[in-house]
Amino acid sequence: MTEPVEGLSINLATVRKQWTFAEAVDGCVAQGITMVAPWRDQVEAQGLKSCVKIVADAGVRVTGLCRGGFFPHATAEGRAAAIEENKRAIDEAAALGAHCLVLVVGGLPEGSRDIVAARQMVHDGIAAILPHARAAGVPLAIEPLHPQYAADRSCVNTLAQSNDMCDALGPGVGIAADVYHIWWDPDLEAQLLRAGDRLLAHHICDWLVPTTDPLNDRGMMGDGVVDLSTIRRWFEAAGYDDFQEVEIFSANNWWTKPPQDVIATCIARYRAVCAARA
Amino acid sequence: MTEPVEGLSINLATVRKQWTFAEAVDGCVAQGITMVAPWRDQVEAQGLKSCVKIVADAGVRVTGLCRGGFFPHATAEGRAAAIEENKRAIDEAAALGAHCLVLVVGGLPEGSRDIVAARQMVHDGIAAILPHARAAGVPLAIEPLHPQYAADRSCVNTLAQSNDMCDALGPGVGIAADVYHIWWDPDLEAQLLRAGDRLLAHHICDWLVPTTDPLNDRGMMGDGVVDLSTIRRWFEAAGYDDFQEVEIFSANNWWTKPPQDVIATCIARYRAVCAARA
Repeated sequence: MTEPVEGLSINLATVRKQWTFAEAVDGCVAQGITMVAPWRDQVEAQGLKSCVKIVADAGVRVTGLCRGGFFPHATAEGRAAAIEENKRAIDEAAALGAHCLVLVVGGLPEGSRDIVAARQMVHDGIAAILPHARAAGVPLAIEPLHPQYAADRSCVNTLAQSNDMCDALGPGVGIAADVYHIWWDPDLEAQLLRAGDRLLAHHICDWLVPTTDPLNDRGMMGDGVVDLSTIRRWFEAAGYDDFQEVEIFSANNWWTKPPQDVIATCIARYRAVCAARA
Repeated sequence: MTEPVEGLSINLATVRKQWTFAEAVDGCVAQGITMVAPWRDQVEAQGLKSCVKIVADAGVRVTGLCRGGFFPHATAEGRAAAIEENKRAIDEAAALGAHCLVLVVGGLPEGSRDIVAARQMVHDGIAAILPHARAAGVPLAIEPLHPQYAADRSCVNTLAQSNDMCDALGPGVGIAADVYHIWWDPDLEAQLLRAGDRLLAHHICDWLVPTTDPLNDRGMMGDGVVDLSTIRRWFEAAGYDDFQEVEIFSANNWWTKPPQDVIATCIARYRAVCAARA
C-alpha cells in the first residue's frame, strides 16, 4: 500500500485539463494523497451526489471548495443573484464536508472605476451569506488575490485588508492565504501573525520569472522565487499547522503533462522545498 | 503662439520609439507642453551637454530623470557598482536641473529568494548615495512599483513601504507615485496623506482590462479603470499641487502611433479626466 503523504492537499485545478473529478481523486489516492480541493465546475461535471460518494469511498478530506465570491455588480439584481449563487456554493461545500468555501470576491462592476464601492459590495455580500454559512457549518475563506487581479477578479488584495474584513464581519469568516498572491507583501509576516486562527488554508505554488501570462503561468514549487519554507515558518508561528494545498494554473506546462507525473512532482517538491525552515 | 498646457509633464518614455530627445522636446513644446521627464538612455543617445542646452533653449522644466536604482545584487562588487552608477545618475539629474531622480529600486538578486534581504540592500544603497544627492541638490524619489514587478524590478511595492523607507532615511528622499502601480492599494488615500510633502511626482496613465503584457501595455488616461480624478483629489489633499506626468509604455498601441498624435491625446485626456473631482 502507498505511504500516505502527510500534510499535502491537491487542489484539483492543478490537473483540471487532464482529469475529471473521479479520475483526479483516484489518481491522487493512488499516490498517497489524502486531501483534495475541487472547483465547482468540476463538481458540477461529475454531479454533486457522485462527488460526495467518491469522497466518502476514498476517505479523502476536502480541504476547500473553490469558489464562491464575485459579489460586486452594477445592479441590485446582479448583487442579489450573486448572493443566491453563493448560498448554493455553501450548500455544496457542506455536502462535501469541505473545510471551507474559498471566496474570490470579485473586482469592479462593469463600467465602474469605483474600487472603494466595490469593496463595500464585497463586505455587504459576505455579510448577507454569513448566516447561511454559519447555519451550514461552512467557514468562509476570503482569498486575497494579487493586485494584478484587482480590476477583474478580486478587489481584496492584501492580508491586511482581509484581516480588516474579518474584523468587521465576525465569526465564520477566515482567510485562504495563497503564496502566489501574497509572497511580495512587505507586511506578510505581521499579517499572518495577526490572522492567527483565521487561517483556513495555505495554498502553494511558485512565482516564475518571467511570468508569461498573468493568470495561467503559475510555477511548481521550487521553480520560482517564492521562499516557501520561510513563509511556512510564518504560518506555523501564527498557529497554523494544517495542510498545504497545491494550486497551479499552468496552460503551457503542467496542464499539458501526464497528470500522474504532475502529482508525483507536487509530492516531491512539497517534500523538498515546502517544510518550514528550522 | 500655442497656449501653454498647465500642470502636464510628458515623460519621454511615452514617445521613446518615435522620437529622439531633441525631437521629443521640440514636439512637446510645439503643442504647449512646458515640462518633460527623460530617461537616461535617451539622454545618453543625445549627449548630456546637448540635452542641457536643448532644455535651456526650450525653457522646459525637467520634472524628473528616470532612473536610478537597481541596488540589490548578489555580490558586494555588484552593489558597489550600482552605487557608483547611481552617483552618475545624480550628476546627470543635477546637470539637467531635474526636479528629482526617480529610483526603480530593483528586485531580487540573481538566484535569491530573500526579498527581506533585497529590501535591506535597497535601504543600504539609497543611504550610500544620499550624501551625494544632498550635495548635488537632487531629491531622490523612490517609486513603489506594482507587486507584479516585485521579483525583477522593484521590491518596494507599496506607498506604506516607501513612506517607511523615507522615515528611516531622512531628508533628501521622497516618493514618485505612479497611479499604475498604486491604484489598487486599499491604503492609498491614507498613505498619500502620510506622504505629504514627500510627494515629488504624480505619474499618470491607466490600467487596461485586460492587460495583455505586464510591462508594455499601459493605457492612455480614460481608457482603463483607474479613477484618476479621485486619486488626484487625494494628492491635492496631501498638499501636492504640482505636475501630473504622463508615462505610458505601450508596445502595440501608443508606441506605434505618430508621436504628435500621442501628445495631443495626452493633453486632451489630461484635460478630460485628470482634474481633481470637486
